[in-house]
Amino acid sequence: MKGFFMLAALFLAAGSGRADEGMWTIDRLPLEQLSQRYAFTPDPEWIEKVKSASVRFNDGGSGAFVSPRGLVLTNHHVARGQLQKLSGEKTDYVKNGFFARRPSEELPCPDLELNVLVSTEDVTARVRAAAAGASESERNARRKAELARVEKECFDKTKLRCDVVEFYRGGQYQLYRYKKYTDVRLVMAPEARAAAFGGDYDNFVYPRHELDLAFFRVYEEGKPVESPAYFKWSAGGAKEGELVFVAGHPWATQRLLTVRQLEYQRDQYLPAYLVRRAARIRALEAYSARGPEAGRRAYAKLSGFANGLKAVTGYLQGIKSPEVMAVKKADEEALRAAVAARPELAAAGAWEAIAAATDKKSARFKDLTYRSADDSQLAGFAQQIVRWAAEVEKPNESRYEEFRDSNLDSMRLKLFSRAPVYPDLEEVLLALDFQESLDQLGPDHPYVKAALGGKTPAVRARELISGTRLAEPDFRKKLVSGGRKAAAASEDPLIVWARGVEPLYREMRKWREDEIESVESLEGGRIARARLAVLGAAAYPDATATLRLSYGKVAGYEEGTTKVPYKTNFYGLYARAESFDNQPPFDLSPLEAERKDDVGLATPLDFVTTNDVIGGNSGSPVINRRGEYVGLVFDLNVPALVWNFAYTEAQARTVAVHSAGVLEGLRKIYRMYSLADELAAP
Amino acid sequence: MKGFFMLAALFLAAGSGRADEGMWTIDRLPLEQLSQRYAFTPDPEWIEKVKSASVRFNDGGSGAFVSPRGLVLTNHHVARGQLQKLSGEKTDYVKNGFFARRPSEELPCPDLELNVLVSTEDVTARVRAAAAGASESERNARRKAELARVEKECFDKTKLRCDVVEFYRGGQYQLYRYKKYTDVRLVMAPEARAAAFGGDYDNFVYPRHELDLAFFRVYEEGKPVESPAYFKWSAGGAKEGELVFVAGHPWATQRLLTVRQLEYQRDQYLPAYLVRRAARIRALEAYSARGPEAGRRAYAKLSGFANGLKAVTGYLQGIKSPEVMAVKKADEEALRAAVAARPELAAAGAWEAIAAATDKKSARFKDLTYRSADDSQLAGFAQQIVRWAAEVEKPNESRYEEFRDSNLDSMRLKLFSRAPVYPDLEEVLLALDFQESLDQLGPDHPYVKAALGGKTPAVRARELISGTRLAEPDFRKKLVSGGRKAAAASEDPLIVWARGVEPLYREMRKWREDEIESVESLEGGRIARARLAVLGAAAYPDATATLRLSYGKVAGYEEGTTKVPYKTNFYGLYARAESFDNQPPFDLSPLEAERKDDVGLATPLDFVTTNDVIGGNSGSPVINRRGEYVGLVFDLNVPALVWNFAYTEAQARTVAVHSAGVLEGLRKIYRMYSLADELAAP
Repeated sequence: MKGFFMLAALFLAAGSGRADEGMWTIDRLPLEQLSQRYAFTPDPEWIEKVKSASVRFNDGGSGAFVSPRGLVLTNHHVARGQLQKLSGEKTDYVKNGFFARRPSEELPCPDLELNVLVSTEDVTARVRAAAAGASESERNARRKAELARVEKECFDKTKLRCDVVEFYRGGQYQLYRYKKYTDVRLVMAPEARAAAFGGDYDNFVYPRHELDLAFFRVYEEGKPVESPAYFKWSAGGAKEGELVFVAGHPWATQRLLTVRQLEYQRDQYLPAYLVRRAARIRALEAYSARGPEAGRRAYAKLSGFANGLKAVTGYLQGIKSPEVMAVKKADEEALRAAVAARPELAAAGAWEAIAAATDKKSARFKDLTYRSADDSQLAGFAQQIVRWAAEVEKPNESRYEEFRDSNLDSMRLKLFSRAPVYPDLEEVLLALDFQESLDQLGPDHPYVKAALGGKTPAVRARELISGTRLAEPDFRKKLVSGGRKAAAASEDPLIVWARGVEPLYREMRKWREDEIESVESLEGGRIARARLAVLGAAAYPDATATLRLSYGKVAGYEEGTTKVPYKTNFYGLYARAESFDNQPPFDLSPLEAERKDDVGLATPLDFVTTNDVIGGNSGSPVINRRGEYVGLVFDLNVPALVWNFAYTEAQARTVAVHSAGVLEGLRKIYRMYSLADELAAP
Repeated sequence: MKGFFMLAALFLAAGSGRADEGMWTIDRLPLEQLSQRYAFTPDPEWIEKVKSASVRFNDGGSGAFVSPRGLVLTNHHVARGQLQKLSGEKTDYVKNGFFARRPSEELPCPDLELNVLVSTEDVTARVRAAAAGASESERNARRKAELARVEKECFDKTKLRCDVVEFYRGGQYQLYRYKKYTDVRLVMAPEARAAAFGGDYDNFVYPRHELDLAFFRVYEEGKPVESPAYFKWSAGGAKEGELVFVAGHPWATQRLLTVRQLEYQRDQYLPAYLVRRAARIRALEAYSARGPEAGRRAYAKLSGFANGLKAVTGYLQGIKSPEVMAVKKADEEALRAAVAARPELAAAGAWEAIAAATDKKSARFKDLTYRSADDSQLAGFAQQIVRWAAEVEKPNESRYEEFRDSNLDSMRLKLFSRAPVYPDLEEVLLALDFQESLDQLGPDHPYVKAALGGKTPAVRARELISGTRLAEPDFRKKLVSGGRKAAAASEDPLIVWARGVEPLYREMRKWREDEIESVESLEGGRIARARLAVLGAAAYPDATATLRLSYGKVAGYEEGTTKVPYKTNFYGLYARAESFDNQPPFDLSPLEAERKDDVGLATPLDFVTTNDVIGGNSGSPVINRRGEYVGLVFDLNVPALVWNFAYTEAQARTVAVHSAGVLEGLRKIYRMYSLADELAAP
């Protein structure tokens, strides 16, 4: 990774205007840097449009309104979960694509929730005041209760989705109010191969040749919603060197972690994650080998797991680089020196406190990590139902946050989803989780005893999955509506199982909240406020699945001894397929192959920019100064995976589908003329 | 360079049949490995055809007969020197290509010599016997005199070109007899851009999109020569995984050097080479900036320099790799242990002797390196003429080897060439050489005093070049035919200059031959014989510009997290040009652009194999089991540059133009229908 040699200089210059770094919140845009570097100052309407036309996929992922009739564009891989849920043995929309040629053919998604940001409000003072003066053991509970109150008040008043989000690892609290949409219909998705040409090999790779896109339409009261805020399509796209923006919802970054926390990531968390992912991939591959239908059922999950494995491999490689760690250490030392010299920064002792909490977490790593049965959807349902019954009886501010009143609707959408569940796949996943718990914790661990009941993982998983009725949505609904009594009385084997492991879960969660999260949040907040005091406007918070704007330019780069171009084209797609003799995963999709002669081969297909993104930005719009849609973010390249920890610009790039490529694909390959016309309407 | 992790295993397995390693002499093919690995045993006719259809370009480079009418195919970059010499201000064949559409348009080359191997004979015993018993100081002189006698006898008897070649760094001597051709005519060369798409950026890069080819025809007595031995064209080329052979004339490798000699390469020779090349490139770029005609004049030289810079950068990177050096050390230790244990191997003390000689060479490095004025062709002519006069008076076996009777014809071809010489360019190059000598040796060095005569490099170069008549071929001819008297009497300033520096040259050459070469050859020979005794048939000699056959397979490889395909196609050419907006050096050639719609885009263009090659293999044929022509070697990729020192297979590849791509280019882009038909004739 040649790029790392540039890192020290770039990172330390963060915010100084020398690098296209930063995932900026919409209320705190880096206007000075933009003006200095690109002579551009967005006006309030521009900012308002970015806010109102950007869409958050509540399961993770981003998108944007691209027409005034509620049309939302995102990635195929963001849509993959819904495509899988809408498919069956005879109708594989994941593999074959889906094409609604008239409004009546648009397919309602079973459990897709989209959010559009309405407003934000800084509530830091209120949250801090609530915890002030409390004993150390009570501070965290008071903080959480206050968050619940803020959300509840907001929800009662506005009926919007109201989330208080922690920024800067505890340094700031913001109330985010979202318009929530749950009647979302699938309009179009290309074939999986066109959306993921080259499969796992070409994932995180550039040059790239993908139409990783999917269209949804948002409905309200049975009609397409009016979306006056949308990005007008740019048929020509962006030129080399042009300033572009990415508006999206990056999930999480680890840039503000302390060195001790980074070491934990490097030495414990990420390596264990990789081992677990690899085991899940092996299990799903073995399952897929049972036959085409098994392969279809496992595809979306398997693709997601493979994506995670490759991404985290890159994260780990990044943080293992001595150069990155050296920069992190120097950065921390500089801040600690400032804190030591200026008592008013009030962060003395914070690093030590976080290090002590991390040591605790590290010492209990296995116990915290290997109790999960969440890979099985049915086991997850069972635990949610048992927990729901206990939680909703409590006052709102005392509940686990996911059971606060303001969150229950979103939870119902998933819990009562009519999407199919496949028992054979469930059994494989549950057995895998059980086996891992047994291997890692040993047969005498209380969780293992409770979860397995003395049986082997395979036997236990089979009896639980074959005996449960939780695959029926109505059965789940009935259990939830029956409240604590129904949950307590149920003899469904998975519910019985969930009741058995619940006390252990509650013990562990309490310990983690009190001993770890509390320290990370409160002490992290002190560090964050010191950092803000030192860096001022140059600081941006770690990603938190909230709307972020990053700026950058369209730019190729050098690799080895040669140049990598800023864009690809359809020539390149056919070149790569042909150069592998059209062998999977480098085979063309059926329609790409069939309609090859129709395609304008020189049309740009994908392109790269220096915009700062991370997982969750998938589906983000790339827009130009005029607020026009020029690209669809779907990836970052391998050298950019270090962005999880630190931004570097030499070779790291965001990868997007070109707006001209989208139109060409729609018109020439998929013959979705009216959809293309809706995009390209003047 | 990920590939290096595989190196230890591969290198130590050399010859064991696990890697496609080796540049094998035609008299000692690895028949056992071929049979074991590929179940193929070439019959005598197959071997005889390889010998008789392979062509050596005496200036460096390889080629092959591809029709029974003397048609020879090589690389554009091998032909570039002749193209440059055939061009003028109004007719730039380098840039615009050359296309003889009928025999009468075929252009005679000014000074191109091609050699075709007729036979070889082992003369080791004779050469060793001649030196046996002589005192240490006389051994080398006797060895050289015997080589001269062998060549002279051969030449007198056969009228063939007769070269005695040292193999295994002194371990073996072979007499090579060649049929020599000097009436060679240019048939076709594409535009420079088509032959070097992507310029220096894409040189040594793969995937690659080049038509790096040129056709010559060999004449005798005014008629195309009959060439019954030629490679029949394979229109389909080779499949992935297929066994293929490369027959060519690799110049030199450094695989059998001792560790001390490798350290000298790593620490002194290669670093200095890079600095010198970079300075020459800067000087030529500055010269080229004077205008289009200057750019045209410098192009061939500049391309060659840039190629050398990039290649040697790769060599140095390879030998700097700790893994490579560790393998080399282990290899040497193993051999030295065998020598210590088995006195009959008779190589004790050889490593120490070579180390001592290398220390001497190293201590005198500057003095040996920076006395050259050879970048100027005219200064080179002057020195050759002065030396010629002195040497040819001596008995044949006492002369410098290049002046032996058997070599004089080849020297005359160059010395009396009617190719244009450009004084403005000559002046730049001579001034550069002078400046370097001054900078490195200081003003008081005897060579600097003699060469510069107290003037500045620029003034001295100007007066010498502007005053000399050596740019006139007839003037050179007259001087040579005038013998010692003419050379001594000439008042041509460059001849006067050459007379002045000649004694210093002779002193230095004598020292190097006596103190260095003698030891390297005689002690190196002892090591080599010990190695052969230990390894037996598994050993092959370092490259020596003699015919070598290497075997391998058509194979892509993995790079980073993805796959690199085994072949490219014309889609890829247009993809890459378009992705850079057709900006140089990624612009299409005029005819590639104009006739794009005629081209079968899926036609294979270039491909890669595991065949072991090095510089000098440019232009080599890639042939299949049936002896058919499937590809034209024109490059190796960056990971293969370490092959100068050691073979590795993980990512290192030979790059060739595909036989189908050659035909498609000839027919669709260049419309050279009769040439294509001549190739593809049944």
